[in-house]
Parts: sequence; C-alpha cells; structure tokens
Amino acid sequence: MIKVSIIGATGYTGIELIRLLNRHKDVEIDSLFSNSHVGKNLVDLYPQFYGKKDYIFKEFTIDEVKNSDIVFTALPHGVSQGIVAKLYQHGIKVIDLSGDYRYHDTKIYEDWYGVKHEYAEIAREAVYGLVELNRELIKDASLIANPGCYPTATLLGLLPVVKAGLIANNEIIIDAKSGVSGAGKSVKIDTIFNEVDESIKAYSVNKHRHTSEIENILAGVINTKEGIKLSFTPHLIPMKRGMLITIYTRLSNEIKEEGLIRLYKEFYARDSFLQIYKSGNPQTKHVLGSNYCHIGLNVDRRTNRLIIVSVIDNLLKGASGQAVQNMNLMFGLPEERGLEDTAIFP
Amino acid sequence: MIKVSIIGATGYTGIELIRLLNRHKDVEIDSLFSNSHVGKNLVDLYPQFYGKKDYIFKEFTIDEVKNSDIVFTALPHGVSQGIVAKLYQHGIKVIDLSGDYRYHDTKIYEDWYGVKHEYAEIAREAVYGLVELNRELIKDASLIANPGCYPTATLLGLLPVVKAGLIANNEIIIDAKSGVSGAGKSVKIDTIFNEVDESIKAYSVNKHRHTSEIENILAGVINTKEGIKLSFTPHLIPMKRGMLITIYTRLSNEIKEEGLIRLYKEFYARDSFLQIYKSGNPQTKHVLGSNYCHIGLNVDRRTNRLIIVSVIDNLLKGASGQAVQNMNLMFGLPEERGLEDTAIFP
Amino acid sequence: MIKVSIIGATGYTGIELIRLLNRHKDVEIDSLFSNSHVGKNLVDLYPQFYGKKDYIFKEFTIDEVKNSDIVFTALPHGVSQGIVAKLYQHGIKVIDLSGDYRYHDTKIYEDWYGVKHEYAEIAREAVYGLVELNRELIKDASLIANPGCYPTATLLGLLPVVKAGLIANNEIIIDAKSGVSGAGKSVKIDTIFNEVDESIKAYSVNKHRHTSEIENILAGVINTKEGIKLSFTPHLIPMKRGMLITIYTRLSNEIKEEGLIRLYKEFYARDSFLQIYKSGNPQTKHVLGSNYCHIGLNVDRRTNRLIIVSVIDNLLKGASGQAVQNMNLMFGLPEERGLEDTAIFP
Amino acid sequence: MIKVSIIGATGYTGIELIRLLNRHKDVEIDSLFSNSHVGKNLVDLYPQFYGKKDYIFKEFTIDEVKNSDIVFTALPHGVSQGIVAKLYQHGIKVIDLSGDYRYHDTKIYEDWYGVKHEYAEIAREAVYGLVELNRELIKDASLIANPGCYPTATLLGLLPVVKAGLIANNEIIIDAKSGVSGAGKSVKIDTIFNEVDESIKAYSVNKHRHTSEIENILAGVINTKEGIKLSFTPHLIPMKRGMLITIYTRLSNEIKEEGLIRLYKEFYARDSFLQIYKSGNPQTKHVLGSNYCHIGLNVDRRTNRLIIVSVIDNLLKGASGQAVQNMNLMFGLPEERGLEDTAIFP
Repeated sequence: MIKVSIIGATGYTGIELIRLLNRHKDVEIDSLFSNSHVGKNLVDLYPQFYGKKDYIFKEFTIDEVKNSDIVFTALPHGVSQGIVAKLYQHGIKVIDLSGDYRYHDTKIYEDWYGVKHEYAEIAREAVYGLVELNRELIKDASLIANPGCYPTATLLGLLPVVKAGLIANNEIIIDAKSGVSGAGKSVKIDTIFNEVDESIKAYSVNKHRHTSEIENILAGVINTKEGIKLSFTPHLIPMKRGMLITIYTRLSNEIKEEGLIRLYKEFYARDSFLQIYKSGNPQTKHVLGSNYCHIGLNVDRRTNRLIIVSVIDNLLKGASGQAVQNMNLMFGLPEERGLEDTAIFP
Repeated sequence: MIKVSIIGATGYTGIELIRLLNRHKDVEIDSLFSNSHVGKNLVDLYPQFYGKKDYIFKEFTIDEVKNSDIVFTALPHGVSQGIVAKLYQHGIKVIDLSGDYRYHDTKIYEDWYGVKHEYAEIAREAVYGLVELNRELIKDASLIANPGCYPTATLLGLLPVVKAGLIANNEIIIDAKSGVSGAGKSVKIDTIFNEVDESIKAYSVNKHRHTSEIENILAGVINTKEGIKLSFTPHLIPMKRGMLITIYTRLSNEIKEEGLIRLYKEFYARDSFLQIYKSGNPQTKHVLGSNYCHIGLNVDRRTNRLIIVSVIDNLLKGASGQAVQNMNLMFGLPEERGLEDTAIFP
Repeated sequence: MIKVSIIGATGYTGIELIRLLNRHKDVEIDSLFSNSHVGKNLVDLYPQFYGKKDYIFKEFTIDEVKNSDIVFTALPHGVSQGIVAKLYQHGIKVIDLSGDYRYHDTKIYEDWYGVKHEYAEIAREAVYGLVELNRELIKDASLIANPGCYPTATLLGLLPVVKAGLIANNEIIIDAKSGVSGAGKSVKIDTIFNEVDESIKAYSVNKHRHTSEIENILAGVINTKEGIKLSFTPHLIPMKRGMLITIYTRLSNEIKEEGLIRLYKEFYARDSFLQIYKSGNPQTKHVLGSNYCHIGLNVDRRTNRLIIVSVIDNLLKGASGQAVQNMNLMFGLPEERGLEDTAIFP
Repeated sequence: MIKVSIIGATGYTGIELIRLLNRHKDVEIDSLFSNSHVGKNLVDLYPQFYGKKDYIFKEFTIDEVKNSDIVFTALPHGVSQGIVAKLYQHGIKVIDLSGDYRYHDTKIYEDWYGVKHEYAEIAREAVYGLVELNRELIKDASLIANPGCYPTATLLGLLPVVKAGLIANNEIIIDAKSGVSGAGKSVKIDTIFNEVDESIKAYSVNKHRHTSEIENILAGVINTKEGIKLSFTPHLIPMKRGMLITIYTRLSNEIKEEGLIRLYKEFYARDSFLQIYKSGNPQTKHVLGSNYCHIGLNVDRRTNRLIIVSVIDNLLKGASGQAVQNMNLMFGLPEERGLEDTAIFP
C-alpha cells in the first residue's frame, strides 16, 4: 500500500483527492493537514465521508510525513513554494497542485504571479505533470508540478496540431468557460450564489496567469526561442464543475477534418482518458465526475480556421484526478487505477 | 461473473445501472435492450462511455436473456408487468424498477395507478426490495420490486419510530422535494429547462402514487387492518439529482432527541448506507452520487412534534443503486459491492 | 413628488427599493445611506443603474433626511431599532423592513431574536404592514413594520380559513421553500455558489424567528389568549428569487374545495395582488419579479386535510414591493402604483 | 393609443411582448394569435397575467387585424414569410421577429436558411431594425426586420471600430454564450432540464445562420464588395436569460483603451440603452430584464488584440424589447417608452 498524505486537505481539490484515494485499492491515507481546521474531524466537516475511515486534521510538520510515500500539496500558490521545497529536500515525493513549480524559468512565474520564487533550482527539477506530454519523465520524477485546469484542457486540444506544425502559432485564441469550483472554496461577494447564478462573466481578461503556463509549455514543445503569444480569456459559468475550451486557430495547410481526426487519434493512441470525436462536439456533462478529456474538431473552409472544443471536469483531469494519474505512474501502477469512472449522468 | 441484462437501458435509471455495473468487479453486462434505439451503439448515444466496452441496443426477446443470471427491468409501469411476468415464468431472476410489483394486494395498485394488473399471483411472490426492511427475504428472492425513490427516503426516515410505536400513525405529513431526474427522461413542455429553472412547484397534490406505496408498507410493518392514511406532497426543485424529505410526526411519548438518535442507530446497526446525524440535518449534496441515506432528527417540545429530514440521491439509493444492492444480496455478495463511493463534492 | 430616502441601500432589499422607486412616477429618491460604502457611487457598485440618475452613498445622520417625506430602513434586526426610533421621534414616516417593530409585545421579540428591545413603547405604535390585513390602519400610520417574507406568504395563505374558523388552529404545519436571496447579501461559506447549487437543505428547524411572527399575528387575528403554536420549517432551494409555502391544515368542517375557493376570493375581493387559483397550484415562476401572491387550495377527503400552496417573490411582495405598497397607501396613492409588472418569464 | 396585434403570441418572444406592451402607456393590445392555442385564454396558459386584461387566442386572418396599427410577427422563419408579405401588401405596419426579412439579398438567406424566399421584392423594402444603426430609416419604415439576438449584441460591440476602420476585418472571431431561452419554447430531448443543467456545449459550429446576418450587415456598413468572413461560435449556458459575446479582433492601429472608450461613447452618444464601461467588463446579470446593452473594451498590447465583451438580455434588446423600441420610433414616441426598467437584481 502506498501511504499518502495531503497538505491543504479541506479545499475542493483536497476533498476530491480524499474521495479518489478512498476508493483507490493500492493507497492508504496517512495524514491530512489543514491549518484552518486543526483538531477537527473530517466527517464532521464533510458528512459525505460518514461510514468511511475518519481522520483528524493536523498541523503540518515534516515529522508527520516521515512515513508517507508521497505527499500531495493542495495549497494556494506562494504558500506552496516553501512547503514543497522542504518536502523535496527531505527526499519525499511530492505532487504540487499549485502553480509554483510549473515553470523551469521562474522569471516567467514571477512576472505573471507577482510573487518572488525562492527555489529556482528546485523548480528546474520539477516535471510538468501532463501525462499525455510527459509520461516517461513522470515515471521517474520526485516532484510533479500538476498542471492548471485551463492549461490541461487547452494543451490537450492543441498539442497534436502544434507539434505537427499545422497551425499559425501566433494566431491562437482560447475562449474558456468554467464552472465555479475552478475558483476553489473562495468566500467573497463575487462567489456567493446570488451573484453567480443565472449570469456569465469574463474575468482576468488579458492577464490570467494560465496564459503564461500555456504559452510556456507550447513554446517548449516546438522548441522556439521567440516564444508563443496567444489570447486566453476565461469566463465563469453558473454551474459547479466542468470546463469547456473553444480554441480558434488558423490552418496553415489544406488538411481536412478526417485527416485531423486521424492525427489526433494517433497522437493519443496510448492515452486512455483522451477521446476524439469522429463528428460533433463534446459537452461538459459527458465528463462530469470522470477523468476523461473529450475533444471535437471543426474545420471551417470559409475562414480556413480549425476550431477545437475540449472538455474536462476541472476537479478531475483538471486537478485531483490528474494528480492521482501522476501518482499511479510514479509508483508503477496502471495510470487508470482509481480513475475508471464514467461521468455521472444526468 | 454474474451476467446481467437490462431492459429499458436508455432511460436515466438504465444508464445509471450501466455506469454502476461497469465498475462492479463481479458483474459482466450481457445484453442491453431498448425498443426506441434498436441497432444503435451505447457510445454514440451516451458519449460518457467512450473508452469502455460498447454495446448495441437490441429488441427484447426471451431468447436473448437465456444466458443472463439476472435481468433489471427499467421500464414504465404498466409496460413492465408483462415482461417481468415472462422472465419470472422462465425462471430468470428479475429486479423490477417500476411500480408494477410493489403491492401484494394488486387492488391497491389498480386503484392508484389506474391500470389493470394481469399477474396478481406473481405480484404476491415479489419481495419489496428495501434492504433495510427485508434483507433476509431478498437473499432468497427471485423477483424484487425495487422501491420508488420517494418511498425509499420516506420509509427509511419513518421505520424506526413507527415500529417502536412512538408516533401517532394517522398524523404523518410528508413534504418531499426532488430534483428533476426523478421524473425520468420525459420530454414535454413541463420538463424543458426554461420552465423548470429558477422555479419551484408542488405536483400531484393528494394523488401521487407513492402515497399508496408508503402507506401500504407502513401498514404491513405494524400489521394493522385499518391501514395508515397520511399526506404526501412532492415538489419539483431546479436541480438534477437529490431528494430531501421532511416528515412531520406527532410524538405519542416524552422521548428526547438523544433517545431517538440512539433508537435509529440501533435500528440501522447493520446498514452501512444509513447515517443518523448526532445533531443538525443533512443536505442532498452530501449524498449526491452515492448510495447513502442521511437522516436528521428534530424534536420540538413546543408542539410535541418530531421532524425527520431524510436525504438520498434519487437515482442511486432511490433507484439503480438500491437495485444493485439487491442484486448483491441475491448473489451472496457484500451488499456494498460497487456502491462504495462517497458523494461527488462540490 | 414624494421624497424618499433609504437607509441600508446596498443590500438586496435596498437595491430592489431603488429599482422600484426609480420607475415610480410619484417618487423622487432623496438620499441613499450605506455605512459600508460611504462616498461610493451607486452606478459603480451596481452597473444596472447606468443611464439612470446616480447617487453617492452617504453616512446616515438625522439632518440628511430632514427633507424626506418617508424613510425606508433596510437594516439587520437589532441595528434597525435605534435608527427607526430616532426617525419616529423626529416625526419622520418610516417603513422598517427588519423584524424589530413587528411585535407589539416586545417580550416575544426578545425571546426569539435574543436581542433586547429598547423601544417597547414605539413598538406598540407600529402598524404591521400586511396590506391585506391592515389596510385602513396603514393609511394613517407613521411607522410601518414591513412583514417578513415567510410570514407574508404564509399569512396570506392562512388568513381566510383561520378567520372563518374552518381549521384546527393547533395542527398547522408550514413547510417553506425559499430562493437564496431571502438570506440577503450574506457572504459566508454556506452561501457560496458551490455549496448551494444543486442541493437542498432545511435550516433553523424548530427555531426560525418567523415562527413567532406568524403565530403572533394569527393569535391576534382570532383574538385568543392561549396563542397558537405551529411548526414552521424553512428550506433553502438553489434559485435566486421566489418562495413557495406548503401549509398543511386539518379541516374542522365538511367544506368543499369550491366553497373554499369562493371564501378566499371574497376575502381578497379588494386585493389586486392576490390571485386564488380555481384549480391546480401556483409555481414561483409565475410571480418572479412581480408583487403578486398566488394561492392554490387542495382538499384531501382521505385525510380531511386542506393543503394550501402560496407563492411570492420574496424581494417584492415579501419585502421591497410590499414596502412600496405600504408607502402608496400612506400617501393616498393607488396601492398598485409602481408595482404593476407581471412576472418576468421565462 | 396604438392598437397592436401579435401573431405567434405564445412563444417566449410573444409572451415577452405581451408583458412589455401591458405596461406601455401608449399601447392597447388588439388581438393575440396562436395557431396552437386557438380558443384558449391567455391567463389560463400563463397565470402570470392574472389580474390583467385577459385575451382569447385567435387564428390569424387578415380581417382580424384590420383595426391594428401595427402587427408583431413572432413566428419561426419560413412560416413568417408569407404572413408578413400579406400584412405588408395590405398596408399594415409589421415588425417581424424572424430571420425572414433581414437580408435585402435573399440569396444569402436561402443559402444559410435552406429555405426559398418567395418575396424578394418585399425583402428589399424591409429596414433592419437595429436602432443604433438605422434610427432614421426605422422612423419611416413600414416593415421592420427585427435583428437576431446574437447579431444585436455582436454588431453593437463591433460597429464603432469597424466603421472607424480600426481593426482587421477578416480576423474577427466571435465566441457567443447564451441562456436557453434564446432557443425558444422548443420541446425536445436537448432542451429538457436534465440535459441542459450543469453543462456547457457549443452548437452549430461554423454553420449558425446568424453568422451570415452579422457578416451581411457589417459588409453593408463598410460598403465592401468582397464581403466580410468571420467565425461565429455559439454556446449554450445553463441559465434562462442573458447573452455574453466575446469578440476577438486584431487592431490595425496603435489606439489605446481610453481612445477606444471615447470612440464608443461618441458613437453611441444618442443611444440611451448603450453603456460603455470605463473599466472592467459587464456581466449578464446587470442587464437581466432590461433593454440595455453593456460593453467592455480590452486592449492587449502583447498580442495587439482588442477584446470586446458585449451583454444583453436576449429576450429584450435581443428580441421583444428591441421590437418595442422600433415601434416607438415608428410612431414618433420616445424610443425608451415602456423600456425604462433597470435589471432585476439579484
């Protein structure tokens, strides 16, 4: 049994990790840490765990995880940095769900997050945990930077055409729509039901941090010095879970829809969570509660554009599900272990 | 491996059965039947099953299930009757999710459903599949009448106090609130999004069929000739899944809240899906996507009333989850098999 | 033109008052007060008012309202008390939307609200602003205690049968369902979208303050010394506006549905916002955004119960709409002025 | 009093017209036509009109409207054509809410709608009823083609920069998000609550008819022979009303955000329903239930793009509200008459 601890266990990604690990047959939860709820019981705060093993939330110290085989950190960016560094320095495997270790070049991180990075050397050791891109690296990694939700869905939609050089790299426009759980358990006027329900809004227009994460990974993939500059605009949708990304690209080639579908299917031949539609486009309800990513491809000959539609559950493939997938690889398990569920429907 | 077939596989309870059986390690799906979709593929209609084994929907004939160990019928009432009878007569185990076999006295069925019952003798052989009431009978049953969603949540809330004789049996008032999936995949003006969203309504006031199901089971439990007459009023709530039942009763006894909680905990000591709150009341989100039933108990000394709040996921404990629980018992498996999940949250 | 000021103008009832008064042709808004937003502009905080006259929120002093003909106080209970008293003592007409002045016997208030009442004498002068009950008193009142949302919908449903002595007064059970705006602009974990959406909960079971308000008014209506004791259980529903009350009563009389409908229609013959259904039951969507109260009546001969379904928009007839209706009466205007709208649909 | 009739009065745009016209002080409703509900009462079908004047739905004949000053046709495209032509030929003023008369060149209509246009000559006489573009023409028009909801919000967002020649006309990408009422009172599996709630989908990708409407009007505005080709992708959002359009454009000029805001404010100086944000972006809740269009402007120097966010209520400025605004102009009334409301909030 793999002994697992979670730091930041009471946020939505933390709770989702507990749910997933509870049903994972090769895992045993070791300790749960939550500074805001030290001494409280899991079951009292989250009654959905009635009937399962209960835990008391502890304050994190390095001693408390000395028996853990791996630690998940589900903390706000900035807060995560130092704790991850300490775990890494003690030789404990870490999967970090924050943005802190997603950039080998921490200068980009500092520019977009407005936070100093104190552990640039460790950041260069981290592996970006997008399985479909970095499967082999992940198997041997000690520190995984689990991708952001928006970058996950976007990169999975873009990687095949970008790698194949089929689109104009500086004409990419990403219009993202997300359910509210993507914002975490944030308590403020903007997140109360009355303000969110029955309304749509764009936010962080032209300055969302995930822009830099997407650009940075894509630039690495095509190995360009100039980098890639794209537009990324997220929108908040009145629903809890689910994320749909509409990606607008310019085709630099006469390739047809069938050719593209074949290209994507081949690209993701080893990836059991990736599904390429042979026609039509996916809806978020078809991945709700599952670790799948569904992709639709639409060529418009009038404008010579390829429009890609990519959907995930932001708390699964976009966060905790992908984290478990990474853990599976790091421990030599089938990557689907504990993630076999299909969407809950309706 | 238990070979399972489903008749009526494309409704919401049918689809939920497929989802649950897909992850049940002792089960293999044999055939899926759907008159309205004969010849079509599961994955084309329900893309959430991409990546799992695909099936072609067939038209039901008795020959097609001759290798099945058990058949689930997820059909409208009236339609189910004859098909269940045929399966039963061929010696095939059946779990029927309709209302057709829930009454040993088919006269009550005929009065409330307005449909003639052609198989009164078979109806008398059926076991009402509320595990917490009839566990031992279910183990040996050939035909299970799977309870309705409202009766399940209501009976689980009432059984301990009714059996203990602690309330006035003719002063029971049940106010039920249900998500829209309880109405099934019904396509009519009343069920379209624009008419349901942001609104509440009461429906079938004083004439919902489940009234008779609850009364009939309770009368059986206390073995009364006069029967029980209660008020049951269902309401439609703008959400997909989840059901909350508020039950108003008059205490005939000075028992305190702590005593009642103890009584309920003892009553359900063997029942792993039942959770009695030591204080406060459950919310439907804490059982969403799980087979649990959570119950809160509230004594009001001012009015001498006991108010019981009971919540379930109508498609799990209220339908397909309970059906799988019944199947497990019929085949000597632990009743929790395949139903271990905690709620998906948020 | 009636000059109107609002104290507590940035909560939901305050904003709803501004919306209603903006379109009221006999009214001019004088000053808007909000301690939390002093110096800010209405339009910057609430962009829906772009294109209308803008206001700067001020800190309340008695001098600032010396030119106002009437002041609405939309403040939390406890906070309202002293401000209302000061206005009253300065001879300024007040409509108070809090619970502070709804009880002539402030002992009841103190018991249920857990707050001391410092102005018992003024409380005895206040008129309970349920127009359909107290129309003539309201016309001459200086201080109106605007009813709570739950009491409004409940009392309108009960008054005709209680006054006519047709039901057992101590067997009344009220099951209330409310949209989330009833809780006001409250920012806490319980009110964020992710916790409220797709879930139902009961709250304040057996201890909601509105219980006492309903009991107190009903006891006054039938002029009983013993008082009335009833059960009131509110539930939170995932929608913004709208309230449906299901009232369970025991008929003490053989009266039929048609007789009851006639009784209600006569009782409310002068009341243009009350609509009695000749069959079926109302849904909240039919009053969304309007000042109407719709009522359905259901006699069940099996149990001899009368089930009453009453719906309102909690921010209109349940708060700000009723407040404007009261103001109209106090100034000799038709009570419908500015409240003519039918529901926004869908 | 202007006597108004509505053909197709029981769809959502028809009902919204009745709501708006009921409160319009210069209008009297003459007749309501609905083939599907002939002989039924408005109030029985739509109880929100209880307490207002009732109407019986009639079957349309030309004789029935001979006393009407103007007729609104709220019919499906294709169906509208012939009826509008007949009204026009009888010299009756018409505002047509369908797509049938929005193209002077009916060839484009036929290509995109897949329907033959039988009245090309009349189509050439119709005025496209986007007030902010065609105010003067509308005043003298006999036949108004009321714009589609998506084109309204999109064109209002684009007109100032397109007219000023500030963007690359063939790099326009429009990502649209709409509440479900935009689809009308359509009853099919895709529109039922269980299938829509908590999910997002793209639909009609690269083939939505409104693409041609937007392209055609823009091409007319800049008077280009080659026409404009753009990408338009609509998405369905789980809410009833409201539409947010995100428009991605390439700036051909170094203009700054402040300059653009000034340009937009000047362009819409006469237009009381248009609000240009001085910073930030609008949300649909700020126009819900109002006839306003709110616009936010965002320049991204990194990519040299201008991102425009435009929001409307699809049933008001996107349909029935704009129709009433057109009617006001045609009869010499202030265009705001009957449309003064601010958004209902929350």
